[in-house]
Amino acid sequence: METARCEAFSDGVFAVAITLLALNLSVPGPGSGHSLAYLLGHAWPSYLAYIISFATIGIIWVNHHTLFRNILGIDRWLLFMNLLLLFFVVAIPFATRTVADYLRVAGPDASLAAAVFQIVFEGMSIAFSLLFWYSIRCEQMIIKLTAADARRAFIRFAIGNAGYITAIGIAFVSPVASLVLSLLVAVYYVFEQTPSRPPAQPGAPAT
Amino acid sequence: METARCEAFSDGVFAVAITLLALNLSVPGPGSGHSLAYLLGHAWPSYLAYIISFATIGIIWVNHHTLFRNILGIDRWLLFMNLLLLFFVVAIPFATRTVADYLRVAGPDASLAAAVFQIVFEGMSIAFSLLFWYSIRCEQMIIKLTAADARRAFIRFAIGNAGYITAIGIAFVSPVASLVLSLLVAVYYVFEQTPSRPPAQPGAPAT
Amino acid sequence: METARCEAFSDGVFAVAITLLALNLSVPGPGSGHSLAYLLGHAWPSYLAYIISFATIGIIWVNHHTLFRNILGIDRWLLFMNLLLLFFVVAIPFATRTVADYLRVAGPDASLAAAVFQIVFEGMSIAFSLLFWYSIRCEQMIIKLTAADARRAFIRFAIGNAGYITAIGIAFVSPVASLVLSLLVAVYYVFEQTPSRPPAQPGAPAT
Amino acid sequence: METARCEAFSDGVFAVAITLLALNLSVPGPGSGHSLAYLLGHAWPSYLAYIISFATIGIIWVNHHTLFRNILGIDRWLLFMNLLLLFFVVAIPFATRTVADYLRVAGPDASLAAAVFQIVFEGMSIAFSLLFWYSIRCEQMIIKLTAADARRAFIRFAIGNAGYITAIGIAFVSPVASLVLSLLVAVYYVFEQTPSRPPAQPGAPAT
Repeated sequence: METARCEAFSDGVFAVAITLLALNLSVPGPGSGHSLAYLLGHAWPSYLAYIISFATIGIIWVNHHTLFRNILGIDRWLLFMNLLLLFFVVAIPFATRTVADYLRVAGPDASLAAAVFQIVFEGMSIAFSLLFWYSIRCEQMIIKLTAADARRAFIRFAIGNAGYITAIGIAFVSPVASLVLSLLVAVYYVFEQTPSRPPAQPGAPAT
Repeated sequence: METARCEAFSDGVFAVAITLLALNLSVPGPGSGHSLAYLLGHAWPSYLAYIISFATIGIIWVNHHTLFRNILGIDRWLLFMNLLLLFFVVAIPFATRTVADYLRVAGPDASLAAAVFQIVFEGMSIAFSLLFWYSIRCEQMIIKLTAADARRAFIRFAIGNAGYITAIGIAFVSPVASLVLSLLVAVYYVFEQTPSRPPAQPGAPAT
Repeated sequence: METARCEAFSDGVFAVAITLLALNLSVPGPGSGHSLAYLLGHAWPSYLAYIISFATIGIIWVNHHTLFRNILGIDRWLLFMNLLLLFFVVAIPFATRTVADYLRVAGPDASLAAAVFQIVFEGMSIAFSLLFWYSIRCEQMIIKLTAADARRAFIRFAIGNAGYITAIGIAFVSPVASLVLSLLVAVYYVFEQTPSRPPAQPGAPAT
Repeated sequence: METARCEAFSDGVFAVAITLLALNLSVPGPGSGHSLAYLLGHAWPSYLAYIISFATIGIIWVNHHTLFRNILGIDRWLLFMNLLLLFFVVAIPFATRTVADYLRVAGPDASLAAAVFQIVFEGMSIAFSLLFWYSIRCEQMIIKLTAADARRAFIRFAIGNAGYITAIGIAFVSPVASLVLSLLVAVYYVFEQTPSRPPAQPGAPAT
C-alpha cells in the first residue's frame, strides 16, 4: 500500500479522535441545582484530561507523519502495526472520559482511572515504538538513520515508555501527579523530534 | 468518478465508524454504587465487541484499498455498490453497542443481539463480494486476475460468508461462541490477502 | 480556492454526517422491561429514516462530485453557497433522529417531525440548485452545458424540489407517506444523473 | 512538514467539529409532557448558537486555507500554533452546547455561558492571529504582503479580536446581544478577505 492512503486514513482517525475528546467537556444543563460557575469549576479534571489527551494525540500525529514520510512503502506488517497504534488512539477519548469522571472522587477509583489512562498511552507508545523499530530493521527508510540517530531515537522512545510506565505506578499514589507526569511527557515530545529526513528549511519550499 | 475521490470518501466513513466504536466503551460515572474495578470488569463484552469490530473494519478497509487500486474507473453501479458496503459499515457501531449491552444478560436477548451483530457483518461481506464480482465481470481490473487467482478469491469470499452465516446460527446456541467465530474470521483475513496487483516489494519504492 | 480542497472538506462533512446517522439506531439497554426483539421491532421508524437519510446523503455526495469536477474554480460566492449546502447536510442527523423518535406516536407531533425532516431536505435541495444555477450563469463550467442539457437539469431539480415540497404538505396528512415520498425522490436520483462531463468509459482509465 | 498534510488534518478536524455541532440540536423524545412544536420552539437558542458556530467554523476554515496556500513550508512552531488553533476549534461544540442550554434561563448562568462561548472564539481568534503574524515575520509567505496589505490584515484581526472581547463583556449585560455581536463578526468576515495570493480569476482554471 502507498504510504499516502495509509496516512490519509490514519489522519482521519486522529482527527475524529481528537475532536471527540471535547464531547467529554459537557456540563449538566440547567436544573441540576448548581450554578454554572460551580459546574464549570467542578469540571477541572475534564479540562486537565482534555489538555493532556489533545497534546498527546497532536504530538503522536506529528511524529506519525515524520516517520511515514521517510518510509518507502507499507507492507502488510506495517499496516497491522499501524492499526494497532490506531486501536489505542481510538481508545483515548474513552480513557479521557473515565479519568475525568473519577479524578474528582478520592481513593482507589481515581487511581484505577488514572492507571487505565496511562495504560492506553503506554499501549500507544509501544505500538509506535514497534512501527519505528520495524521500519529501521527492515531497511524501509528512504534516508537511513545514522548509528547516532538510531541511538538518539531509542533514548527518546525509552524516555516516553519509562514516563508512561512510571505514571501507571504513580497513579496508585497520586492520580493527579500521574496526570501531570503524562503532561510532562507531552511537553518533552514537543521539544524533541523523531529523527528523520532533514526538515524543510525555513524560507525554502517544502517538498 | 475517479477512484481517488471514492476512496477518500470511503476512508472518511471507515475512519469515523472505527473511531465511534470507542463511544461504546464508556462506563457509568461515580455514584453508580459500584467500584470502577467492578464496572470495568463487568464491561468485558464491550472490549470483546470493540476488538472484533475494530479488527473487522480495519481489515475491510485494507481489502477495500487493495481492490480499488486495481480498478480502472468507477461507474454508477460500482458507486452504489460501494454505498451499500458503507451502509453496513456505518451500522457496525450500532451492532457493536447492542451486542455489548446484551451479551451480559443470558437468554434469547443475548442470542438476538449476537445474531444482529453477525447479520450486519454478513451484509458487509455480501456487499464486498458484489463489488469484487462486478469488477471482475465487467473487466474493470487494471491487472486481470488469472483463473487461479479468481478461484482463490472466490474461496476466500466463500469462507468469510460461510463464517458469518454459521456465526448467525451459533448465536442462538452460544452468543459468546458466535463472537469468537467472527474474531477467527478476522484473524483469517489478516493472513489471507485479496488477490490484486503484486504488493510493493520491501525495499522498493511503493507506487 | 481550488475545487480539490473544497471537495475534501465537503467530503469530510458528508462522511461524518452519514456515519452519525447510525447513532440514532441505538436501542435501550437491558432492564427496560422489554425484550430486545420488541425493542428492535419497535424501532422500525429509525431504520426507515436511516435508509432514507443514508440514501439522500449518498446521492447528494455523488451529485456534488459530478458538479464540482466540472467547475473551473471556486470564488467566494460558490464557497458560501457550498457552506449553505453543508449547513443543511449537517442538520440531517438531527432531523432523522427527530422523525424516528416521533413517527411512532400518532397525531400532530409525528406530522411536525416529518415536516421538519422534509424541510431540511428541501433546504439542501435549494442550496444545491443555487450552486448549480450559479455555476451555469457565471460560466464557471469546464464543459459548457448544451441548451438541452441545461433544460434537462432544470427539470431534474424541479422534480426534486417539487417532491420535497409535496412531502412537506403530505406530512400533515400521513407522516409515513411523506417519508415514502422522499425515499422515492432518492430512488429517482439514483437513476437520473446530473448532466456534466461525459462519465469515464468502462474499460478506459478514469481521468 | 508539507502544508498539504497539515491542511488535510486540519480539514478533518474542522469537518468533524462542524458536524458535531448538530448533535446539540436534539430535542427530547416523546413522553416529555410537551408537544414537539413547543420543544422545537423552546430550542431557539440551539438554532441561534448552531448558526453562529457553523458560520464561524466555516469562515475560519476558508481563512485557514487562504493563509496556508500562501505558506512555503511548515516548521515546528507553525505546527504547534496550528494545533493551538484546533484546540479551540474542537472546544466550539462544547461551548455551543453550553450556551444553548443556559441561554434560556435568565441571570448569571446565561451570562457566564455566553462569556465562555465568546472566550473560546477569542482563543481561536488569537491563535489565528499568531499563525498569521508568525508567517509574515518569518517571511514564510510565497507572495510577500505589501505594507498596505499587512496594515489591512492587522485592522481585520483587530476588528475580530475587539469584537469577541467586547462580546465577552456584553455577555454580562445581555447574553443574547453578546451572541448577536459574534454573529455580526461572522458576517463581517464573510465580506472581508484575508489578504493573500490573488484569488483565481473567474473563467480561468484554478491552480
